[in-house]
Amino acid sequence: MNLPVILGVLGRLLVLYAGAMCIPMILAIALGEWSITSFLLSVLITGIPGFLLMKRFKTPEMKMGVREAFAVVAGAWLLASCTGALPYWFAQVVPTYMDALFETVSGLTTTGASVINDVEILPQSLLLWRSLTHWLGGMGIIVLFIVLLPKAGMGSVLLFNAEVPGPTNDRMMPRIRDIAISLWKIYLVFTALCALLLWSAGMTFLDAVNHAFSTIATGGFSTKNNNIMYYDSLAIEMIITFFMILSGVNFAIYLSLWRKRTMKVFRNTELLVYLALIAAAALVIAGSLWFRSGNSPEDAFRHALFQAASLLSTTGYASADFAQWPSMTKIILFLFMFIGGSVGSVSGGLKISRFILLAKAAWAELKRGIHPRVVSSIKLDGKVIDGESLNRVGIFFFLYVMTFTIASIAMAGTGLESFDAMSAAAAALGNVGPGFGAVGPTTTYAGISLGGKAVLTLCMLLGRLEFFTLLMIFRPEFWRRRKIW
Amino acid sequence: MNLPVILGVLGRLLVLYAGAMCIPMILAIALGEWSITSFLLSVLITGIPGFLLMKRFKTPEMKMGVREAFAVVAGAWLLASCTGALPYWFAQVVPTYMDALFETVSGLTTTGASVINDVEILPQSLLLWRSLTHWLGGMGIIVLFIVLLPKAGMGSVLLFNAEVPGPTNDRMMPRIRDIAISLWKIYLVFTALCALLLWSAGMTFLDAVNHAFSTIATGGFSTKNNNIMYYDSLAIEMIITFFMILSGVNFAIYLSLWRKRTMKVFRNTELLVYLALIAAAALVIAGSLWFRSGNSPEDAFRHALFQAASLLSTTGYASADFAQWPSMTKIILFLFMFIGGSVGSVSGGLKISRFILLAKAAWAELKRGIHPRVVSSIKLDGKVIDGESLNRVGIFFFLYVMTFTIASIAMAGTGLESFDAMSAAAAALGNVGPGFGAVGPTTTYAGISLGGKAVLTLCMLLGRLEFFTLLMIFRPEFWRRRKIW
Ligand SMILES: [K+]
Ligand SMILES: [K+]
Repeated sequence: MNLPVILGVLGRLLVLYAGAMCIPMILAIALGEWSITSFLLSVLITGIPGFLLMKRFKTPEMKMGVREAFAVVAGAWLLASCTGALPYWFAQVVPTYMDALFETVSGLTTTGASVINDVEILPQSLLLWRSLTHWLGGMGIIVLFIVLLPKAGMGSVLLFNAEVPGPTNDRMMPRIRDIAISLWKIYLVFTALCALLLWSAGMTFLDAVNHAFSTIATGGFSTKNNNIMYYDSLAIEMIITFFMILSGVNFAIYLSLWRKRTMKVFRNTELLVYLALIAAAALVIAGSLWFRSGNSPEDAFRHALFQAASLLSTTGYASADFAQWPSMTKIILFLFMFIGGSVGSVSGGLKISRFILLAKAAWAELKRGIHPRVVSSIKLDGKVIDGESLNRVGIFFFLYVMTFTIASIAMAGTGLESFDAMSAAAAALGNVGPGFGAVGPTTTYAGISLGGKAVLTLCMLLGRLEFFTLLMIFRPEFWRRRKIW
Repeated sequence: MNLPVILGVLGRLLVLYAGAMCIPMILAIALGEWSITSFLLSVLITGIPGFLLMKRFKTPEMKMGVREAFAVVAGAWLLASCTGALPYWFAQVVPTYMDALFETVSGLTTTGASVINDVEILPQSLLLWRSLTHWLGGMGIIVLFIVLLPKAGMGSVLLFNAEVPGPTNDRMMPRIRDIAISLWKIYLVFTALCALLLWSAGMTFLDAVNHAFSTIATGGFSTKNNNIMYYDSLAIEMIITFFMILSGVNFAIYLSLWRKRTMKVFRNTELLVYLALIAAAALVIAGSLWFRSGNSPEDAFRHALFQAASLLSTTGYASADFAQWPSMTKIILFLFMFIGGSVGSVSGGLKISRFILLAKAAWAELKRGIHPRVVSSIKLDGKVIDGESLNRVGIFFFLYVMTFTIASIAMAGTGLESFDAMSAAAAALGNVGPGFGAVGPTTTYAGISLGGKAVLTLCMLLGRLEFFTLLMIFRPEFWRRRKIW
């Protein structure tokens, strides 16, 4: 393990992170909010060590192996979580540091589960920091999964359908920087568009920016206690629905569109299934709300579509209290928490591609039961998926379900009712945010015990980093000094 | 597809099945019960077509391929379910034929979910038939999975850890008959022992026989409305606990013990994990009942052990109303419905071996993340598991979870609450029987809509035949006339 490289990179990231913290600080100064000192302290505590690390471990030529990359990713998430919690803690808007950490991890992982019962009394600067953690975390995830991991040979951990104009072996770093910058631009354009539209639809400018950050990152934090229900505006819901759906798509598709300017990039199985799932669920749920719960057909479809998009993109916004809906719609939304959006997107969950692959593998297996000698290969968008990648998808599915189960048992142990406990675990692991019942969209996680919050915090991180990154660092081999490869 | 062979075998099975129906008929005659005519009609309707088929399609030398074997298995389950429902229907103890079918499939698949609210008013002959379906179904499954499927080259669909003294290529049929007869003997000895012990512990002779059938098959039908709670007897609970645990073990282990007479057969990872899971769950649940629900420590452990053994072996007996227990214990028992017992046993669920393999694969995968060039093979009890088998286990896990999800949505659609719906689907798919809430151990499935009963019936069959058998016959290739292999 090349420690100097790791520390140098982490130092640089801390400085950048402190720079990001300056944005809400400047807002606090502009609005004259009392939270200025909280931010100032946080910026200093984050920035100074970062600056010192950066100076001490200058690394002009980066020599990062797979392990160094893992260490940087794990370290960055750890540091960003711990320092990002400082503004909440210093401002004393949460009772304990664990609560502040929960809120920050929930932000950075784009989960959007909150422990703050009344967010409307928070200073605007803290609200902005809250949304900003979503936005930064979301961008970090896209860069990690589209740019860094494939470079580190971990591309098959996820599966890209769209052709990523990825780095070749020579001149690696410049190309990586290129791609990352293109992704940033796309992300920025989406956010700006979303903010402008929300502003023009009647939100205040700051609310529009906050909700744009939250929407594009599939986060779910709102500046209102009643979430999107507060606005009760069809226009706002439609804008948010559109951008939630947009954010659940593989950003490599946008990248290809950006570079190649051809509509062919949309010929993507995962994208098709993603849109079909939202449409199908919206229709079924709307039917259920119309016939069972007596909503008007317009209202039923409006909220059904919003909630389907919100849960499948794992944003977790609520335009209605879906925890009060008929149990069938609840189980569909519960399932959506597990499925999630596309690989290479900001959304959480298991990701649709993995379900497509497993379904195809199951079908092929049935076929083989009858024609044992026919070897059929699994293809996705014309690409053959090798057995090892397929195995990895199956293993990931298993790990995910088992972690969900263990977390559910733990959450039930803290006193939640069975289904509520399961929904809390699923919502944390899938980076969705709200669950059902005691952790439903009209409540917060404030009432959960500290132990329960710790479990959910771990789930959010495990889900966000797709297990391997986080689990890897617990293995003794990871820490051995010398490596052969 | 060789139709004559299939029809000939099915005819022979129908005659045997009609013979089994004569047992409760004889009891009805002996006790002078009014259900005699119901049984007589059923025996005739089952036996006569069977006899005619048998005579018409005499097959001295059986030429069964994989497809013929699948067709026989599917046909046998279908016919046994439809004709087995006749006694209930003729006796008019259920409102519709669908209910009778549900009760029979529940019996044959060793699920033990009942639609009869008051079983204590049933004639003894019908109660015996009910338990007998468990016993016959359980034996059928053991023979299918230990003897027939491995012969048909489908051995890797499941996984045997214990060395099955399996058939070699020459003189196949005599050896198969040998093994099947040995298994029958073991099964019979267990049942007789269980019945004798229960009788001596205070049950009436008939109740003891019924409960022995039900226990050894991990079925769960009782002759009492309050199930095992009715007896409130520590002795009876301990006897049943012992035999439930016994029945969740791979019968290939008993077979090896029977033939080789060495204790080495117990050195089996799955067996170890199976016992460890029961012990661990019993302790955790007992702790929860003691500290949270205020039971005495003795009572807490007594019921915790019984329920852990009952749910992991997927018997589904209840010595207490576990649906009223703390939510954490409920989720543990819910998880047990998915895990199930050992492969090659009578129990349902996904089976422990599959979990062990998936866990090992996940661990190996983590290892490979750090040492990408190290190829480590997955072993179970010293045997290397090839990638293809591993893949199949992952696919089975996926299919199981997805079927559970879809069935949960369907059950919620019939009006059940979310967790109740999920537990009904899990209990049917895992061949457990009772779930939680509206389908808990103190209630029956009588109140479920006919559509819901149909869904659960299908789930019971899918779970029992482990998908492939049942799904296979829906594929067009299956029905094509000529096959090359
Ligand atoms: K979210
Ligand atoms: K059962």
